[in-house]
Amino acid sequence: MPVPIPIAVLGGSGYTAVELMKILVRHPHVRIAAITSRAEAGQPISQVHPTLLNRVNVNCEPFDADALKAKGIQCAFGCLPHGVSAEVVGPLLERGIRVIDLSADYRLKNLAVYAEWYGATHHDTANLEHAVYGLPELEAEHIATAKLIANPGCYPQTAILGLAPLIAAKRIDLGSIIIDSKSGVSGAGRTPKLGTHFPECNENFSAYNVGKHRHTPEIEQALSKIAGESIEVIFTPHLVPMDRGIFSTIYATPTQLMTDAELLNLYRDYYTGQPFVRIRETLPTTKDTSHTNYLDIAIRAVRGRVVILACEDNLVRGASGVAVQNFNIMYGFEQTTALL
Amino acid sequence: MPVPIPIAVLGGSGYTAVELMKILVRHPHVRIAAITSRAEAGQPISQVHPTLLNRVNVNCEPFDADALKAKGIQCAFGCLPHGVSAEVVGPLLERGIRVIDLSADYRLKNLAVYAEWYGATHHDTANLEHAVYGLPELEAEHIATAKLIANPGCYPQTAILGLAPLIAAKRIDLGSIIIDSKSGVSGAGRTPKLGTHFPECNENFSAYNVGKHRHTPEIEQALSKIAGESIEVIFTPHLVPMDRGIFSTIYATPTQLMTDAELLNLYRDYYTGQPFVRIRETLPTTKDTSHTNYLDIAIRAVRGRVVILACEDNLVRGASGVAVQNFNIMYGFEQTTALL
Amino acid sequence: MPVPIPIAVLGGSGYTAVELMKILVRHPHVRIAAITSRAEAGQPISQVHPTLLNRVNVNCEPFDADALKAKGIQCAFGCLPHGVSAEVVGPLLERGIRVIDLSADYRLKNLAVYAEWYGATHHDTANLEHAVYGLPELEAEHIATAKLIANPGCYPQTAILGLAPLIAAKRIDLGSIIIDSKSGVSGAGRTPKLGTHFPECNENFSAYNVGKHRHTPEIEQALSKIAGESIEVIFTPHLVPMDRGIFSTIYATPTQLMTDAELLNLYRDYYTGQPFVRIRETLPTTKDTSHTNYLDIAIRAVRGRVVILACEDNLVRGASGVAVQNFNIMYGFEQTTALL
Amino acid sequence: MPVPIPIAVLGGSGYTAVELMKILVRHPHVRIAAITSRAEAGQPISQVHPTLLNRVNVNCEPFDADALKAKGIQCAFGCLPHGVSAEVVGPLLERGIRVIDLSADYRLKNLAVYAEWYGATHHDTANLEHAVYGLPELEAEHIATAKLIANPGCYPQTAILGLAPLIAAKRIDLGSIIIDSKSGVSGAGRTPKLGTHFPECNENFSAYNVGKHRHTPEIEQALSKIAGESIEVIFTPHLVPMDRGIFSTIYATPTQLMTDAELLNLYRDYYTGQPFVRIRETLPTTKDTSHTNYLDIAIRAVRGRVVILACEDNLVRGASGVAVQNFNIMYGFEQTTALL
Repeated sequence: MPVPIPIAVLGGSGYTAVELMKILVRHPHVRIAAITSRAEAGQPISQVHPTLLNRVNVNCEPFDADALKAKGIQCAFGCLPHGVSAEVVGPLLERGIRVIDLSADYRLKNLAVYAEWYGATHHDTANLEHAVYGLPELEAEHIATAKLIANPGCYPQTAILGLAPLIAAKRIDLGSIIIDSKSGVSGAGRTPKLGTHFPECNENFSAYNVGKHRHTPEIEQALSKIAGESIEVIFTPHLVPMDRGIFSTIYATPTQLMTDAELLNLYRDYYTGQPFVRIRETLPTTKDTSHTNYLDIAIRAVRGRVVILACEDNLVRGASGVAVQNFNIMYGFEQTTALL
Repeated sequence: MPVPIPIAVLGGSGYTAVELMKILVRHPHVRIAAITSRAEAGQPISQVHPTLLNRVNVNCEPFDADALKAKGIQCAFGCLPHGVSAEVVGPLLERGIRVIDLSADYRLKNLAVYAEWYGATHHDTANLEHAVYGLPELEAEHIATAKLIANPGCYPQTAILGLAPLIAAKRIDLGSIIIDSKSGVSGAGRTPKLGTHFPECNENFSAYNVGKHRHTPEIEQALSKIAGESIEVIFTPHLVPMDRGIFSTIYATPTQLMTDAELLNLYRDYYTGQPFVRIRETLPTTKDTSHTNYLDIAIRAVRGRVVILACEDNLVRGASGVAVQNFNIMYGFEQTTALL
Repeated sequence: MPVPIPIAVLGGSGYTAVELMKILVRHPHVRIAAITSRAEAGQPISQVHPTLLNRVNVNCEPFDADALKAKGIQCAFGCLPHGVSAEVVGPLLERGIRVIDLSADYRLKNLAVYAEWYGATHHDTANLEHAVYGLPELEAEHIATAKLIANPGCYPQTAILGLAPLIAAKRIDLGSIIIDSKSGVSGAGRTPKLGTHFPECNENFSAYNVGKHRHTPEIEQALSKIAGESIEVIFTPHLVPMDRGIFSTIYATPTQLMTDAELLNLYRDYYTGQPFVRIRETLPTTKDTSHTNYLDIAIRAVRGRVVILACEDNLVRGASGVAVQNFNIMYGFEQTTALL
Repeated sequence: MPVPIPIAVLGGSGYTAVELMKILVRHPHVRIAAITSRAEAGQPISQVHPTLLNRVNVNCEPFDADALKAKGIQCAFGCLPHGVSAEVVGPLLERGIRVIDLSADYRLKNLAVYAEWYGATHHDTANLEHAVYGLPELEAEHIATAKLIANPGCYPQTAILGLAPLIAAKRIDLGSIIIDSKSGVSGAGRTPKLGTHFPECNENFSAYNVGKHRHTPEIEQALSKIAGESIEVIFTPHLVPMDRGIFSTIYATPTQLMTDAELLNLYRDYYTGQPFVRIRETLPTTKDTSHTNYLDIAIRAVRGRVVILACEDNLVRGASGVAVQNFNIMYGFEQTTALL
């Protein structure tokens, strides 16, 4: 068996990091050689995440590109917050370390759109330009040779893969798209806030960021690329009292009526050969995809509209699992390695 | 203080019945004089629902209209399943007992629509004709003198009250309405099934009855009445891993653009003087309404659409609370009696 | 009907405060005349707790004993954190305002015990001396005339009332008591922390403060008073992924074997006439007591030991409900007023 | 790589079966060659458990020992209910198929004890005699060569491994043991019942089978074997509103006082080299072990008693994970294969 590839996890204290490490310890061709964390530097990672005890025996260290290079790191998984990522990607790429960035920093290609939704100018436009959007079902070819992957957002994957077949086949009115999404609370990250305090969000359901969520332009960019023209969507995120899972209910007006069977065939054809998209005849539930890298989709014709139901585990498929899927493509492994 | 009104609870074993009794024990003008239950006949109700121990000391009895009449029952709250209700309403009305029916049996006026969605012909068309739809904010006048109240469904109340101001003011395209609703599990009733088995629906989110839920025609009937013309809606119900609460996210295309402030004023004006509809500037959550009879609504203009967020407690406002609100109107009490 | 008594809620932003106000709006002889909150001064309380919208229309104000006196406040409910309470009680009592203090500040009579468990000396020993421990089933007589009530802790009530009949009857080995308690997360308060962050404590069960919880000496003080000699207990608190509810499983060695029936009779006799203690034949669950002021107890003889199961709603019976029960006793109302 | 071992899963419709298959698809030396299910015969297993779609492509079949033999099955994992297991084990062993039985049928060696707790005589005493109790940390040597493994119960593992070091070292009073255990709801199986109906057990905590749970004699048998004398324990199980996880709080009186540090060393020494027992300095939580095969233990000296806190994932370590650990020992693989 070949020597495992030394990789680094940047920002080890969050939920995507711990999920990533749980997957990577199962990867036969990977060695977690470094974990960075400003706040936890010096600590064993298992002190931060006791679930990793006996599984990952690595101490956290402060981020230092040279030190990572010296350790032979070939690929870094960035689990840093938005904004912080853009500061470390350049130094890593300069040292020949490939980066899979799980933050939102390199997803939006249009600088004006970035400025509008993030209220700031982008600080690393040079690398932004060649960053590859890491949605394997649409971009596998570019992912294979990428130096920098902008790992896709959790909500956007359900919306984009849920709509791609219909848009590619030009079967829906592009102005009619409504995406009503629901997410488990882990999507809000590991920093305690009132809104994610247990007695506030348990036994509760709510919408947030109505009309303002930053995943909106990411969805629009990907859908517009498929359509070959600019698309605007309505996207409403909601908070569900559960740890993990995203469920998107998507509404669109078809240009001509299709039956459930026609819709099923269209989707099955489009995703033929994709190991992680499951087109379902029955209605999917987030739990069917929980702790997996699968994204399940069902489609229904309802009273002149199309209703698409797409779900996934937000931490696996929505973040760390798809990151490993991207890694597998970049390094020539089976896409499913460590992900079944 | 006047003598309390003797009432009966029909079908005491379910969740709406226990919720109703918890409210009625606080009602200064009501006495729970009889509880019927086929399965639990002879048992103290507190054996079925231990939370009622020391609060409701009544034994269940089999349904018998004459026996209820003999006990002086003036009003019966029907917590029976769909279909069963239609068998007991007639005998009660004949004996001069007013009925507030929490089932769906007397909600749909159009017999063809009923047959289409329920797959059966209606068995009590005579009483159906004069049944009053018990949505107090729209029908208070008819409720006051009604002999038979068709208590409104849980989902429909959020949809109808969420859309009423815009439809009444003719501000939206009537063909554009999409209602994406989410409900706690108590809405599915107290009979154990695989889909509501804890390890199946906990940590899970799913859609069900997509395009087929029987609350669809109830919503359409009420909205069409407001509009003065026939309306068809898209309604998608979802199951949320929580006990109680309904949240509806409603999308419509306005006939002319309105600002958030204009929408707020329109709604505030429409619901002036209604004690249980709260028009919110901030986004509501189901927990704000939990264990109350309030229905909270916020409205947002988003990219050329109107997004309405309406929520309630499905067992209180969605069923038993509004039933007591109807009772209060029928008997001339303050609407809020026992409901604050 | 007599003029309602003007009361104040001190520290309006927490969970016990909002629970208290939901109860008090149902109290026919109370008017919430003032709400204090340092952080929220000037804000309507409904902005802090939207569930109170339309129910409590009072603005928060900074604490000022003279201002409260000027408003005619007769009784103040203290919902302040430990330590802060001891600063405001004196000034209120001096102005003739009775205080029901929900904090732990006036519960422990022994200054050395206080210092040992709280790591600080008590600052208001003068008032500590005449404070009455507000457990109505044991101290009703003193509560009636008290100026200052030390409202009992949530865990202690289950332990004390669960053990009182056996200790009073001298039926158990006083050195054998083990109290294994489980609490919903609202007991940890409203300040966000990592341990009560939803994705940390949801789908999780854990023990905390093993051997060190500050409710230990409170339990011991009350049990010792009943026994007439000093008692030491083992008390282990746990965190349950639910909003509310405390369940204590209590183990003790009987001095002579008793049957289940003998235990049942002993407990029923002891609590005769107490409206809020329910001795159960079947095993109780926290949900039976949820949103009520009941404390449910069952007792079993198991292999030479006695196992006592006692549960309650930690926010109602465990804090705000029993506070209102104390208020009712202090002002001569039925104990159950506003609490059914 | 050698040819994978063909195995069968008996009783594919339950929670331990689906958990087992999720583990086995990661096992490099195993092929799921057959799945039996009376109720689901003929159906793809992914129709019963949609999460297995694309992962396990096997149709259910009725149980037939000859058919399994003909398929070359070498080992069968029994996920059948108590009682049913004892009917299929004999025929499999006769055909040379080794069996890992996850039911309780072959755990209790004493026929009188079995009869007392199960209310029935055992039907397969011949195989009972040579069945090996499959707790790897205590019985690895016998497991290696066993034909029939009685896979251990979920609760008992926490109790036995939690107490083993103290009992082996003769450090506790054997009559003082109290085991207060808490379990997630999946432990109750997949058949819907009122007690596990979501709105009944969500937001609820309760004890059940107080003094009567059938895991009691299993715990006693294993502890007595370690002690070399008969032990009787008090065991109280509780239901926690979460999917998975068991947490046992265990109390015992030490024969001589030990410090926390001495207890820590005793436990670390005892479990040296055991890959799946983690002795923790900090308090463990069930979530630390969730979806893993780890059993975490912490020990505290509290006021003259020892308090042991032991937790695990009831479906993995408590059932299917430890079954695979046993399989690995039986077939000479690393214990951790497919389990990290």
